[in-house]
Amino acid sequence: MKLKVLFNIVGKILILEAAVLLFPLLVSIIYREPVINKLSFLITMGLLLVFGFALNIIRSKDIRLRAREGFAIVAISWILISIFGALPLTISKCIPNYFDAIFEITSGFTTTGASVVTDISALSHSMLFWRAFSHWLGGMGVLVLILAFIPESKDGSAVHIIRAESTGPQVGKLVSKVKVSSRILYIIYFSITFIEFLLLLVGPDKDIKVLESLILSFSTAGTGGFSVLGTSISTYSSYTQYVLAIFMVIFSINFTLYYFIIIGKWKEALKSEELRWYLIIILSSIVIILSSVYNLYSTFEEAFRHTFFQISSIISTTGFASTDFANTWPTIAKCVLILLMFCGSCAGSTGGGLKISRVAILIKNSLRKVQKMINPRRTEVVKFEKDILDDTVVESTQNFFIIYMLIIASATLLISFLNRETDILSNFTGVLSCISNVGPAFGKIGSFGDFSFYSNFSKVIFSIIMITGRLEIFPILTLFLPNAWRKK
Amino acid sequence: MKLKVLFNIVGKILILEAAVLLFPLLVSIIYREPVINKLSFLITMGLLLVFGFALNIIRSKDIRLRAREGFAIVAISWILISIFGALPLTISKCIPNYFDAIFEITSGFTTTGASVVTDISALSHSMLFWRAFSHWLGGMGVLVLILAFIPESKDGSAVHIIRAESTGPQVGKLVSKVKVSSRILYIIYFSITFIEFLLLLVGPDKDIKVLESLILSFSTAGTGGFSVLGTSISTYSSYTQYVLAIFMVIFSINFTLYYFIIIGKWKEALKSEELRWYLIIILSSIVIILSSVYNLYSTFEEAFRHTFFQISSIISTTGFASTDFANTWPTIAKCVLILLMFCGSCAGSTGGGLKISRVAILIKNSLRKVQKMINPRRTEVVKFEKDILDDTVVESTQNFFIIYMLIIASATLLISFLNRETDILSNFTGVLSCISNVGPAFGKIGSFGDFSFYSNFSKVIFSIIMITGRLEIFPILTLFLPNAWRKK
Repeated sequence: MKLKVLFNIVGKILILEAAVLLFPLLVSIIYREPVINKLSFLITMGLLLVFGFALNIIRSKDIRLRAREGFAIVAISWILISIFGALPLTISKCIPNYFDAIFEITSGFTTTGASVVTDISALSHSMLFWRAFSHWLGGMGVLVLILAFIPESKDGSAVHIIRAESTGPQVGKLVSKVKVSSRILYIIYFSITFIEFLLLLVGPDKDIKVLESLILSFSTAGTGGFSVLGTSISTYSSYTQYVLAIFMVIFSINFTLYYFIIIGKWKEALKSEELRWYLIIILSSIVIILSSVYNLYSTFEEAFRHTFFQISSIISTTGFASTDFANTWPTIAKCVLILLMFCGSCAGSTGGGLKISRVAILIKNSLRKVQKMINPRRTEVVKFEKDILDDTVVESTQNFFIIYMLIIASATLLISFLNRETDILSNFTGVLSCISNVGPAFGKIGSFGDFSFYSNFSKVIFSIIMITGRLEIFPILTLFLPNAWRKK
Repeated sequence: MKLKVLFNIVGKILILEAAVLLFPLLVSIIYREPVINKLSFLITMGLLLVFGFALNIIRSKDIRLRAREGFAIVAISWILISIFGALPLTISKCIPNYFDAIFEITSGFTTTGASVVTDISALSHSMLFWRAFSHWLGGMGVLVLILAFIPESKDGSAVHIIRAESTGPQVGKLVSKVKVSSRILYIIYFSITFIEFLLLLVGPDKDIKVLESLILSFSTAGTGGFSVLGTSISTYSSYTQYVLAIFMVIFSINFTLYYFIIIGKWKEALKSEELRWYLIIILSSIVIILSSVYNLYSTFEEAFRHTFFQISSIISTTGFASTDFANTWPTIAKCVLILLMFCGSCAGSTGGGLKISRVAILIKNSLRKVQKMINPRRTEVVKFEKDILDDTVVESTQNFFIIYMLIIASATLLISFLNRETDILSNFTGVLSCISNVGPAFGKIGSFGDFSFYSNFSKVIFSIIMITGRLEIFPILTLFLPNAWRKK
């Protein structure tokens, strides 16, 4: 492991976090909040700058990164920005328990949206903003930003950071050229967020002000799920609910498709196989759930709206709730939502989960293998996005799924071991929700529930699971492998 | 598909089922049961003989079997022996609903042990015997018996039947030579069952008679789980509980190891990697569960006994209950048991589940792949049972796991869709318990629970799931593939 270059880059990321803290500080000033709130941001910024510059005292001459450095930089950065990012919440006494604060802001950066706050309305404006802003930053990957700061390495080794942080199995033509498209994607991200912000602002909800629209937009854009109310989205007008539902879908589709649309390649974008799988999964989920919940609501429109909203919210891994799906919906609806938690959204979006392209590859490959069992002479190729899939892509996709399941199983065991009074449904769906970066789960941590009753140590484990899921497993595993830390 | 040879062999199996029905008929005569009971067996035997001989009227000259015929013969046979085997239960009015009877006897033949009978003590001796006898027959594979009846095909194509029916990924040296070892394995099976029968008979439980010992031995040998009481094993003496617990482990270990022991190759048997994994999983489960339930019982011995018994019962996929683990044990213990339901027992045993060797291969391969991510130049070989695993073995193991999970997910969805009033834990663990051939599950179908509240159609689905699990998926899938049924 090349420690110097690792320190340098992690240091820069900490300095960057100090910079982004200016925004919640500004909110704190605008709303004339108590001095302690402003101080909490300033102290954190100070600490970040000290550590950030300290890590950059000794400059590394060798700036080439290998896979292991890429993984380690990303994993360590996400852990550190959460550890520092939690400080304002605790210093300001908004979330006095530092473990709670770490869980909360990790949930923010990983765009999970799971909360330990029992009374959200008691949080100050600046803290509500900071939580949601962390979603937005986390959404596109904090580290995509840093690319502008990393000195151009001629061999393009920055690709290892992108690779460790971006999502999905990266199949076919949609893999982006590092430098150019990260900027384009960022512009797209910014623009769609802004459109959503405007749409929310002009809506019929009289209570919605600039800050609230901004928070909801950040939360949707990052497919995070933090809201400003303990009742999530359930008290808003149907207009706002529809806007959010649609934008949750938009933000969970591969951003490269929007790039294709912008440069005029509409057809190319619509031909995306992953997009078609995604839409088919959403539509069939709507049919199944609507058929089981239509009699729970007074009008068909209401039933449809909540069905569409919850499906969009769960499959995009946002986690907003427009209705108490976890307690009032029938078993079949819960089953569908749990499966959607596994699936997650499209690769190359801000969403989490296994990713639709992986699910599609797994299913297509399985069907092919069953055929092959019957007819051994059959040639077996699996196509995805019109390309014949390389064996290594299929194999690594299968592997990813298996490791995903192994982590869910081990983490559920561990959480159950540490918390005797909890039930199995809460623990299992809680772990699933965290690794897929969804937010709410079932049982005690349902639609409007929170994770506050888990032990401090469990909250740390949940935080690690969230980061593991957000970074698609391997960067975090790297940290635990002695091999990765050998010199050279 | 070569239909003639398929009909011939399936016909012979039906004739064989008529023959084995003589045993419960004998029990019925010995216990002087009502005429209707004896008639129910005689009518079923008559029907079996008529259909069996009818299917053999046109003899096939081409007796070579391909994979698809092997799969189809096995799948159709298991379905038909269940459909016919259910008749005595319904004709005798022991289980008046024919769907219930099909579920019950499918659960018997597949060695699952899940029941729809709410009052087991109301069943007659002959029916209790028939249920447990079906476990014993199903245990080693009804069709291993038939080998003696199939004319020797010189190209050894009977191997396709064995392959479709025997369990596990078949790695390394333990693959058995078809003709010889199926007889040896059968002798081993018979002998161990007899030893268990004797041990139960001489035990301190005064109520245990010959029939009861026989039923419990059959049930253990097939790793089935049908007992003679609604309280399963909980009212028996600790002697009987220990005997059963130990024999459940014995019957869930690869039988080829006993063959090695008999021919004097002790060391060879003890070196088995799968055996070591199995024992380590059992031991660690005991440590975890015992640490969480020791305070639930009056003595440490009692806590240990129930812990060992339930772990042995679940991992061997037998499903006996010595205590109400599903309702009284803490979450962590339930978690462990659910994971053991996935694992199942060793390949080449009478148990079900994924099989320990598959689990071991999946875990070893995943760890290797994570190492490879960090260090791409590393050579990656996965060894199991001292052999370097072929890529195709690893791949087909991964595939098996993925299809297993896909079936569990789809079946849970379907069962939840069909039964609105059920809860998610019952449905999920019910499906898992059926595909892994365990028997009891959690929620409504816990330790002493039954599946009677599910709809008739659901019972048919559960029956298909049980056969799918018992035959390790592919034979049943074959039936649904149009390709397999093309001429030629």
